[in-house]
Amino acid sequence: MGMRKVIFIILDGLGDRPNPNLKWLTPLQSAEIPNMDLMAAKGILGMQYPISPGIPPGSDTGHLSLFGYDITSEYPGRGIFEAMGENISLERGIAFRANFATVEEKDGKFIVRDRRAGRISGEDAEELAHEISEMDLLNGDVKATFKHTLEHRGFLILEGPHLSSEVTDVDPHEVGYPVLEPIPINDDAKKTAEALKEFLVRAYLSLKDHEVNKRRSREGKLPANFILPRGAASPPKLEPFSSRWGFKPAAVAAGPMYKGIAKALGFDVFQPEGATGLPDSNFSSKIGKALDLLNAYDFIYVHVKGTDVASHKKDPLLKVRVLEEVDIALEPLTDPPEDLLVVVTGDHATPCTIGKHSGDPVPILFFGKGLPKDDSTNFQELDAYTGGAGWFTGSDLMNLILNYSDRALEYGLRPVSRKIRYIPRVNQLTPFIL
Amino acid sequence: MGMRKVIFIILDGLGDRPNPNLKWLTPLQSAEIPNMDLMAAKGILGMQYPISPGIPPGSDTGHLSLFGYDITSEYPGRGIFEAMGENISLERGIAFRANFATVEEKDGKFIVRDRRAGRISGEDAEELAHEISEMDLLNGDVKATFKHTLEHRGFLILEGPHLSSEVTDVDPHEVGYPVLEPIPINDDAKKTAEALKEFLVRAYLSLKDHEVNKRRSREGKLPANFILPRGAASPPKLEPFSSRWGFKPAAVAAGPMYKGIAKALGFDVFQPEGATGLPDSNFSSKIGKALDLLNAYDFIYVHVKGTDVASHKKDPLLKVRVLEEVDIALEPLTDPPEDLLVVVTGDHATPCTIGKHSGDPVPILFFGKGLPKDDSTNFQELDAYTGGAGWFTGSDLMNLILNYSDRALEYGLRPVSRKIRYIPRVNQLTPFIL
Repeated sequence: MGMRKVIFIILDGLGDRPNPNLKWLTPLQSAEIPNMDLMAAKGILGMQYPISPGIPPGSDTGHLSLFGYDITSEYPGRGIFEAMGENISLERGIAFRANFATVEEKDGKFIVRDRRAGRISGEDAEELAHEISEMDLLNGDVKATFKHTLEHRGFLILEGPHLSSEVTDVDPHEVGYPVLEPIPINDDAKKTAEALKEFLVRAYLSLKDHEVNKRRSREGKLPANFILPRGAASPPKLEPFSSRWGFKPAAVAAGPMYKGIAKALGFDVFQPEGATGLPDSNFSSKIGKALDLLNAYDFIYVHVKGTDVASHKKDPLLKVRVLEEVDIALEPLTDPPEDLLVVVTGDHATPCTIGKHSGDPVPILFFGKGLPKDDSTNFQELDAYTGGAGWFTGSDLMNLILNYSDRALEYGLRPVSRKIRYIPRVNQLTPFIL
Repeated sequence: MGMRKVIFIILDGLGDRPNPNLKWLTPLQSAEIPNMDLMAAKGILGMQYPISPGIPPGSDTGHLSLFGYDITSEYPGRGIFEAMGENISLERGIAFRANFATVEEKDGKFIVRDRRAGRISGEDAEELAHEISEMDLLNGDVKATFKHTLEHRGFLILEGPHLSSEVTDVDPHEVGYPVLEPIPINDDAKKTAEALKEFLVRAYLSLKDHEVNKRRSREGKLPANFILPRGAASPPKLEPFSSRWGFKPAAVAAGPMYKGIAKALGFDVFQPEGATGLPDSNFSSKIGKALDLLNAYDFIYVHVKGTDVASHKKDPLLKVRVLEEVDIALEPLTDPPEDLLVVVTGDHATPCTIGKHSGDPVPILFFGKGLPKDDSTNFQELDAYTGGAGWFTGSDLMNLILNYSDRALEYGLRPVSRKIRYIPRVNQLTPFIL
């Protein structure tokens, strides 16, 4: 048996807690997922903390950590990934993830009523975004570009001399809290904070009485009257996934940020027909694409966003349905080629009971012909607690994947000068020539 | 569901090993503890190493590590906590934990016969302590204060110019070993070591023929003829628990050192009626107080010393009895308010078979309505080995507590300039004002 290829499936926000609407079972326990159960029965389960015990990952930091990057030193900030997902190249400038939100003015403060403006539709958001798409700030010294992506999501880019990503978040992340002052963490960021404040006020003035919002109010919908930026980020200098882990990687994803992370790590990114980044995505199309890509790549990352969307909506029944639909799509993987490793997990927990990311551990499944097997019978938490993959943190996952794909280099060997952890390809080696 | 409050119960020295006097069960396995079993059945169990695998914590370092402090860089030494527990303010000076002990003079050495002078009673110890309560050392350059606390325990404070905590322990920690010379670890500590030696000799001369010890010898009891200092410590500069973890904390404890640790971390400390820090403590009074304190605080630490006292006495039946009495007191927690997280664990293992702290892992229980559930049925080691809280080290515990109390801040978010890990209160934030 040579080296295996890998299909790595992230069910976003997979981890969860017992839910009163599921008879106090978790979504994984409640869902009918015979294909994942079959893989669990043939493979091993475990529990992983994407960052470390109790730390709630963001979707970006959860992914980066699972991909084997040190988020304490290599995390560039979320805005970058959003921008890269939209094919915006950032040679310079600062990028922010930014939501359309609903605020209420009160004593000069802006109290957040909904951080997602009632999960505004793409059409409304696009029309509003047009109004604030470009702005000259600080008397033309800084140029602001706002771009809408999906639903309430978008990003803001500030370009100009002497900007810095070291500013605190404007988004307070909690309903009922005031919009926050962007505070420069060091002196280099003072100008960035000033430009950001001008953008916030001018965007608010443009949005609050906009025709779209007037109509939304008439229809009983929340107005999208504020832009909430967070996650200031400078263009990253991330080592490509291929040189760090030795794989030739491809991604199958629809959500902009996930495509952005994959691009930032040098994956080739594919969004097949019907893949939407929403609960109604065509999962069979995505898994089919992943199987096709095995001809040209050896590490296929498949991202499923629907599980997380359902969790943020606190809708456990929807999460169960997404899991069941994903499971149908996974049928071809239950009898995989001999040289395939299948890994299924989540980038973090999003318990439907709390509707936000948590630091709970996340079940994980490793399955491939000839690989270890435990006595798990179902892909669910109780089996995963005692499974053959044990408990570990995200920083160990890529080493485990190298190992179970039979690509891990024995510790201490030094075939090339760099500190690589995978068995190098012959073209990475320097032959001794007479 | 908003943020939860926390009751954090430390059963001192909880971890244990199979015991021949309990038909080779552990005390937890042997005890009838229906209330803890009920919480285990409804919650999750795990195993934690307070410091790291195999490292036996002191009660002070075990607590500090579980409270989320880095003992390699933040541990000030034990004496400080003993002193703070007795309301001694230490602006300057060096504090030592100090036991009444029994030694035998032999060839000019002092051989330790009992490190606790037969667990001398508080009355005898108090009378002896009076004899050595104040001493001028090194011709009046250094002032020594000795204060008795509970049973054989007390502390010694040296005050004067140019003192240092960098001296080795006088207490050899083993019976049959000689009392040790206090050795200055660096030149700054030479004077401290000299003062300490003078104190040891003068205390011995005062104690050895004291009426109390003569009477004890007549009664067949061990004389308390020596003071064994250890854990030299300078006043700590510890970040308050409230700013590190975002809780408003209170402690319910009776043992001086535990009160001292809590005070050093900025807890408000309460010792309700009947709480003694001994196996006969009134546990219901302590749990009742903890429940009362939930009105004004959101993190209540409850310390139970009896389990550890029984373990040091190598008395597994007493440990079982303490566990069973604590369990009766825990009945009100089995049907807790919706917004409560209950955590039960120990600060270290003290196996009754060896009668001292060990580096064995310690069972832990997390329980709250709507929180994860595993298939444990009893609060005991076998269930904890495979439970849904997994295996972790003390440095992760506070992050897990933040998580399961729904207070953990998503990694990467930056609502305030400091690196905080909890969702900040609104008054910690700076609103953006028009």
